[in-house]
Amino acid sequence: MHRRMDDKLQELLERLLRMGRLAESMIQTSLRALIARDESLAAEVFRKEREVNELQIEVDDRAVTLTALQQPVGTDVRFLFMASRIATELERIADQAVNICQNTHHFLQAAPLKPIIDLPVMGDLAEGMLRKALDSLVERDCALATRVLEDEKEVDALRDQIFRVLLTYMMADPGTIQRALSLILISRNLERVGDHATNIAEEVIYLVEGREVRHRHESVNRGESVDRRGGDGA
Amino acid sequence: MHRRMDDKLQELLERLLRMGRLAESMIQTSLRALIARDESLAAEVFRKEREVNELQIEVDDRAVTLTALQQPVGTDVRFLFMASRIATELERIADQAVNICQNTHHFLQAAPLKPIIDLPVMGDLAEGMLRKALDSLVERDCALATRVLEDEKEVDALRDQIFRVLLTYMMADPGTIQRALSLILISRNLERVGDHATNIAEEVIYLVEGREVRHRHESVNRGESVDRRGGDGA
Repeated sequence: MHRRMDDKLQELLERLLRMGRLAESMIQTSLRALIARDESLAAEVFRKEREVNELQIEVDDRAVTLTALQQPVGTDVRFLFMASRIATELERIADQAVNICQNTHHFLQAAPLKPIIDLPVMGDLAEGMLRKALDSLVERDCALATRVLEDEKEVDALRDQIFRVLLTYMMADPGTIQRALSLILISRNLERVGDHATNIAEEVIYLVEGREVRHRHESVNRGESVDRRGGDGA
Repeated sequence: MHRRMDDKLQELLERLLRMGRLAESMIQTSLRALIARDESLAAEVFRKEREVNELQIEVDDRAVTLTALQQPVGTDVRFLFMASRIATELERIADQAVNICQNTHHFLQAAPLKPIIDLPVMGDLAEGMLRKALDSLVERDCALATRVLEDEKEVDALRDQIFRVLLTYMMADPGTIQRALSLILISRNLERVGDHATNIAEEVIYLVEGREVRHRHESVNRGESVDRRGGDGA
């Protein structure tokens, strides 16, 4: 019976990792559509989103069924609850890729605004956070999960930088406002990908160490909140 | 034993409702800070956020402990998983109230931009969605939960209207850009409150009917996605 449970939990983990790989490739593709100005790439993102949605439902159903039928012990229960919550985070990351495609659609209605440099950097960073968070889950590696939490500062710094640069464009020429807003919204989409990766890392730390870090992290951010968006007064 | 389980589930539900009431009052207070231009109100929002965070941890711990120790039956397992996920949604709504306070802080650095009319309407709507979602949970009322899903269109329409109005301000006078952006971001915060309320309503429908609506709803939105933000080309 216990052996059987381990196999089942492993199957659940594999589904989470498949969701993670799909979500990661969706973020990549949505940013490629932006850079290459090729909206046809969005079709692949929409197709993969459906796959991610189906996997989320499957993970949830399996977690509930396993819990109800196999009467798992304490640690396994914690893993099963965590799997259900991580599936939600991954599904939301996939949603952000879809949102990036929608914002890209608006952006591409007009001529290029400027070379797009910082957004792909921010995208790489957010994807890296997701990959590290999932690796930390596989390896049950709290040190690696903690690094995801640290990466969030870098994401925030990039978000602020993108905001400041685009603000100068908008102030100088109101004709750029709509395109600049699309890019600002895409930076917020990537910020949220980083947030979800952070949530996953926090779940891993909670699972492995039984230590609650979910809200510690938020309070740290709060201390810096006054300077959000680079401290540029309105 | 079963009687005992029912009491425990009821205690869990009461904690979710307390989280919901706190989150709702946080949204109200954060918008009051914006309208009354009174930043001191943010302190109350931050204090309540800590309370919500503590309740989330408590709900999760109770759900896991109950599952591990009491070996609940199928429906109760489903309820326990749902309670953990709803606690996450409520905690994220509280986060949005904090984000509104942060965006309000930026907004209040300069003179008033225009009478603020649509944001409180959007706030009332989002709060109403949250209240209905929690009522539908208490009453296990799918019809009421479905109305939350329908309200989302109204929230989207208000978001688009706010966007269009503020865009005209920005185009006419670049000196308004930063303040207009703060208000646009607050409208996005309220949109996310509505999203989380929708997620809660979908959990209720899944719990009561065993019917999966989580992603049906997203696909409907996708069909309209090309016209997001009011179809105003960039």
